[in-house]
Amino acid sequence: MKHQIVRTIQRAAADVIQLLGEQGVATIHEAQGRTGLLNPYLRPIYPAAKVAGSAVTVSCQPGDNLMIHAAVEICQPGDVLVVTTTSESTDGMFGELLATSCQAHGIRGLIIDAGVRDVADLTAMDFPVWSKAISAQGTVKATPGSVNIEVVCAGAIVRPGDVIVGDLDGVVVIQRELAAQVAQLGQRRLEKEANSRAKLKAGEFGVDFYGLRAKLKELGVEYIDE
Amino acid sequence: MKHQIVRTIQRAAADVIQLLGEQGVATIHEAQGRTGLLNPYLRPIYPAAKVAGSAVTVSCQPGDNLMIHAAVEICQPGDVLVVTTTSESTDGMFGELLATSCQAHGIRGLIIDAGVRDVADLTAMDFPVWSKAISAQGTVKATPGSVNIEVVCAGAIVRPGDVIVGDLDGVVVIQRELAAQVAQLGQRRLEKEANSRAKLKAGEFGVDFYGLRAKLKELGVEYIDE
Amino acid sequence: MKHQIVRTIQRAAADVIQLLGEQGVATIHEAQGRTGLLNPYLRPIYPAAKVAGSAVTVSCQPGDNLMIHAAVEICQPGDVLVVTTTSESTDGMFGELLATSCQAHGIRGLIIDAGVRDVADLTAMDFPVWSKAISAQGTVKATPGSVNIEVVCAGAIVRPGDVIVGDLDGVVVIQRELAAQVAQLGQRRLEKEANSRAKLKAGEFGVDFYGLRAKLKELGVEYIDE
Amino acid sequence: MKHQIVRTIQRAAADVIQLLGEQGVATIHEAQGRTGLLNPYLRPIYPAAKVAGSAVTVSCQPGDNLMIHAAVEICQPGDVLVVTTTSESTDGMFGELLATSCQAHGIRGLIIDAGVRDVADLTAMDFPVWSKAISAQGTVKATPGSVNIEVVCAGAIVRPGDVIVGDLDGVVVIQRELAAQVAQLGQRRLEKEANSRAKLKAGEFGVDFYGLRAKLKELGVEYIDE
Amino acid sequence: MKHQIVRTIQRAAADVIQLLGEQGVATIHEAQGRTGLLNPYLRPIYPAAKVAGSAVTVSCQPGDNLMIHAAVEICQPGDVLVVTTTSESTDGMFGELLATSCQAHGIRGLIIDAGVRDVADLTAMDFPVWSKAISAQGTVKATPGSVNIEVVCAGAIVRPGDVIVGDLDGVVVIQRELAAQVAQLGQRRLEKEANSRAKLKAGEFGVDFYGLRAKLKELGVEYIDE
Amino acid sequence: MKHQIVRTIQRAAADVIQLLGEQGVATIHEAQGRTGLLNPYLRPIYPAAKVAGSAVTVSCQPGDNLMIHAAVEICQPGDVLVVTTTSESTDGMFGELLATSCQAHGIRGLIIDAGVRDVADLTAMDFPVWSKAISAQGTVKATPGSVNIEVVCAGAIVRPGDVIVGDLDGVVVIQRELAAQVAQLGQRRLEKEANSRAKLKAGEFGVDFYGLRAKLKELGVEYIDE
Repeated sequence: MKHQIVRTIQRAAADVIQLLGEQGVATIHEAQGRTGLLNPYLRPIYPAAKVAGSAVTVSCQPGDNLMIHAAVEICQPGDVLVVTTTSESTDGMFGELLATSCQAHGIRGLIIDAGVRDVADLTAMDFPVWSKAISAQGTVKATPGSVNIEVVCAGAIVRPGDVIVGDLDGVVVIQRELAAQVAQLGQRRLEKEANSRAKLKAGEFGVDFYGLRAKLKELGVEYIDE
Repeated sequence: MKHQIVRTIQRAAADVIQLLGEQGVATIHEAQGRTGLLNPYLRPIYPAAKVAGSAVTVSCQPGDNLMIHAAVEICQPGDVLVVTTTSESTDGMFGELLATSCQAHGIRGLIIDAGVRDVADLTAMDFPVWSKAISAQGTVKATPGSVNIEVVCAGAIVRPGDVIVGDLDGVVVIQRELAAQVAQLGQRRLEKEANSRAKLKAGEFGVDFYGLRAKLKELGVEYIDE
Repeated sequence: MKHQIVRTIQRAAADVIQLLGEQGVATIHEAQGRTGLLNPYLRPIYPAAKVAGSAVTVSCQPGDNLMIHAAVEICQPGDVLVVTTTSESTDGMFGELLATSCQAHGIRGLIIDAGVRDVADLTAMDFPVWSKAISAQGTVKATPGSVNIEVVCAGAIVRPGDVIVGDLDGVVVIQRELAAQVAQLGQRRLEKEANSRAKLKAGEFGVDFYGLRAKLKELGVEYIDE
Repeated sequence: MKHQIVRTIQRAAADVIQLLGEQGVATIHEAQGRTGLLNPYLRPIYPAAKVAGSAVTVSCQPGDNLMIHAAVEICQPGDVLVVTTTSESTDGMFGELLATSCQAHGIRGLIIDAGVRDVADLTAMDFPVWSKAISAQGTVKATPGSVNIEVVCAGAIVRPGDVIVGDLDGVVVIQRELAAQVAQLGQRRLEKEANSRAKLKAGEFGVDFYGLRAKLKELGVEYIDE
Repeated sequence: MKHQIVRTIQRAAADVIQLLGEQGVATIHEAQGRTGLLNPYLRPIYPAAKVAGSAVTVSCQPGDNLMIHAAVEICQPGDVLVVTTTSESTDGMFGELLATSCQAHGIRGLIIDAGVRDVADLTAMDFPVWSKAISAQGTVKATPGSVNIEVVCAGAIVRPGDVIVGDLDGVVVIQRELAAQVAQLGQRRLEKEANSRAKLKAGEFGVDFYGLRAKLKELGVEYIDE
Repeated sequence: MKHQIVRTIQRAAADVIQLLGEQGVATIHEAQGRTGLLNPYLRPIYPAAKVAGSAVTVSCQPGDNLMIHAAVEICQPGDVLVVTTTSESTDGMFGELLATSCQAHGIRGLIIDAGVRDVADLTAMDFPVWSKAISAQGTVKATPGSVNIEVVCAGAIVRPGDVIVGDLDGVVVIQRELAAQVAQLGQRRLEKEANSRAKLKAGEFGVDFYGLRAKLKELGVEYIDE
């Protein structure tokens, strides 16, 4: 029950992370059995925002960004900050100066279950952020928290070193140990979808393609011609 | 109380639908006596999204998109899918594969009182969607529902074949039988507004133009010069 | 307890308003001791929206924009309308015609704790609006209210003639009497941040730069190497 | 598109209404195929609130209770007022004086997709109300609306003369023409549930009683003994 | 822009406060021209909660109750604490120990735009609280704030010494200088309502009693006998 | 990534669970370092609801209660069902029949991050439930899920066998392995609070008792006598 900063964490392989980043949130979420999605109230601050990296987790008092500063030092290039608060908050706990520091150390982006500010600057810097709110509300540096502990961020469990992928559809977390396997399943899914896409584009109906006519009949749905 | 898919519906005339689409949501809403507006929590997934077409309505179990697949087959070119769920949900019930299928059959867009995913793809395809949420959360195909029954979507009654118009201001439904009449009233309103615009642009005040000085006096509002 | 329209108000100096507009919402909010921020549910209707001006305040019945028309006449070039309702509403109380009238009289923008419509037009006109909702829902002109009284807008007190600054981060209000002093403090803050930015960009850590190591130790946060 | 007050409506038989009232909301909702439930944000103002009666529907401007006064006169003993607004509102549109008038004319209760006030008095009078909010915010009598038209109240379609049942679980609407049939189905459901209750009370498991073991197996759910 | 604790404030006369408490929230809100109501999301923690007293205002950092402790010392018997936070929070900033301290000094209740805990104890103690949330989430004592400054609490301006009245309908604030006048207007309103109540109870319709038939006609509302 | 039902779990000692139940949610939350609190949107369905027991966790598709039935069989007397859904839902997934079955097997209560129905019956049975909503909306039994896996319920991680305590303040989870230690810390806290209570009741101020005067001075808070 003590506050701690864990300096060293394990990370997934860089090529696996890259592959997952290319697959995107919806594909990964499906590939891992419809799990790992963060609550959709997290939204990117600009439409082109995309990220894939290793989670460095941060647990803060609401309205207090002390532990984000502590976390930056612990990060390695390729990491993504995952920030949560001990109770709900929309305060703007992160802005352009912190993003400058993050970019100086190769941090790829921020997932924050709270607010963010300096959004025009962050967009110009192409520093991607997914947040619950945009708010200029400033924060203090007065209360302890932890870095690299298991956290719940926007309803999903995130462990240090888990893979984080974010795009216009939201944010998904992939357990580090399963990342390679999920990436493989994701590739298979993409191949399968390419096939589906071709058929649907050619005009085949989903009710045929997915074999849903029998299902509809079994469920007692009636067709009516009025 | 049975689940059913109604294959054939009546639609408004194509030129009326086009005219309504040009008038836009705010004008139509006013033209039909400030009715028919869907709840403003429905938002377009990209700013340039615009649609006008005939409603094919779909009632789904939350988290289950079986009936959307069934509905696509029933649609004709120029139709707009109007999807609602039997209780609240933000799940991503519709994505790029379904949109590909829709575009293959001339379906113009989607209004959904739930979530949507693959938003970057949908934007690239210029397939317009108005939704309550953006969420990668996948759905099952397990539970029956209905197609082309009267539904309540985002607080408004939508009947199969009603005209749906969507733009940056939201979504409005026009009863099929009244569509031509509403389109006429909309034109008159636009003409009247062109006149108002010219006068307001020239500097005339709304209190004069709309004759509100008498109203303010009657209501007992006092002017004070401090 | 009477409804009134106050014709004449005092305003801050134009150069002070301009300076504050250049500083932006987050800087000003910090410069005045983390006060004056309007609730972050107010969002700009387009990303490039920026405004700085003198508040002309309007208190309306929800769903009734009579008093906005009355307020336009009272405004001077450089003013910003700050509209609130006596209870919660998302109705679209302001649209393109009112914006045309505003622009004809040099009004710079609108802050509204309710809804707005004709958003595509307003964007094309570059008339910046911060609102709680986008809604085509029309309004009546039937109920009295007041212009240029002290109001609470989105949780913040706004007095007639206070300075309003809005950007992508939200909206902040600066008391008229303090505007020059806040602008000075803002400049100092910007200078200080330029220095911080240079150091953080060069790779110095926030925990060093802000002297947080001692704080973390004092608070009992432990570093762990696993 | 005109505002109107329809004086005469058809109602379901009194004994059917009484039977439905005894069955309660959850039973009826199931009996009619899981339809007709109003959004659960409607809550009773006191736990013992129960009502069953014929809907007299009212469509009001938000913040304006003029049409409720008009509706009271149209009601017959045994009716229930169903009030909705043309856009969202939490204003207290109904209080103790209106309830006094309602009780004087045999009106049994109120369903309102807005706010209510004088809640302590209404509780003392045992006048049951289901509302979205409790709010002392007063309303005007300035804007037209309609009585006894089809409305959407809290997401459900209510037609004049439909049966309304409310209890601690919420509010359900039963189409007038189907009321007798639903009441019959409800009775059968209650009898079936009595049997189920006895077996479950005796310790039989739901997985056996409802035959779910096969379903779980078919769906691939595995039992694990760790 | 400094944090301060103002020790001495002016209060309204005790008999005026008592009279307002007897009138209740809805009556006062009407008597002062439908102003002063706090947002209806503030709810009493038990149905019998009632309070009337002089506001001692407190502005806190979210999640930090340091300034509530500072405020208790400043209070006099008959005061009501009015607590707000500098940004949104639902943390339980007040519990049974603070209530014990409050009761020891004659403080009559708490209005808090945040959370409260130990609700069973507070109910047993009959210490009335109106809050935005019930939450056991604990708070720190680390950040400065102010006591007895003008605050915005749940959307309403509250000044030190203003009269606060709370009951089952919510909370209303009455400006200290106007308290006696409002109390008088409230009495007149109560007398008028007694008369209205008698007539409505006897069966007179509101449309007659309030003279609304002419209004309905003027507004173009048509009566229809189907 | 398979769906599974884990039959056997470890539980905390019965006397520890009982002690924690007596301490209550707020005390436990503090004793374990302000952790473990479930989101305060979970509310008890009746004020006297209290529970303490071992968590049997259930992960369901929204709108589908199949896995709750599967979970009941796995429970032992003294257990508490902790139900979550894979995406947000307010459907009434649990009612009187399931509660009857639960009571027949000694299950003490339900924590559900969704809706519940038959609330009047559950209250009469004294079967305590904490839920996000009360809704009569029925559910299907069509989609697989899991029992006794680690879940996130209302924002908190719950593992099978963790101790769950619920009362009027909300719900807290205590890790099974730490339960005895937390119970001890809770007792110490209660003793300390008894002492604090006595002093505060005798009139000592919190600023003295908690030694906050120095803190206020250090933070620069000024006392002002106007």
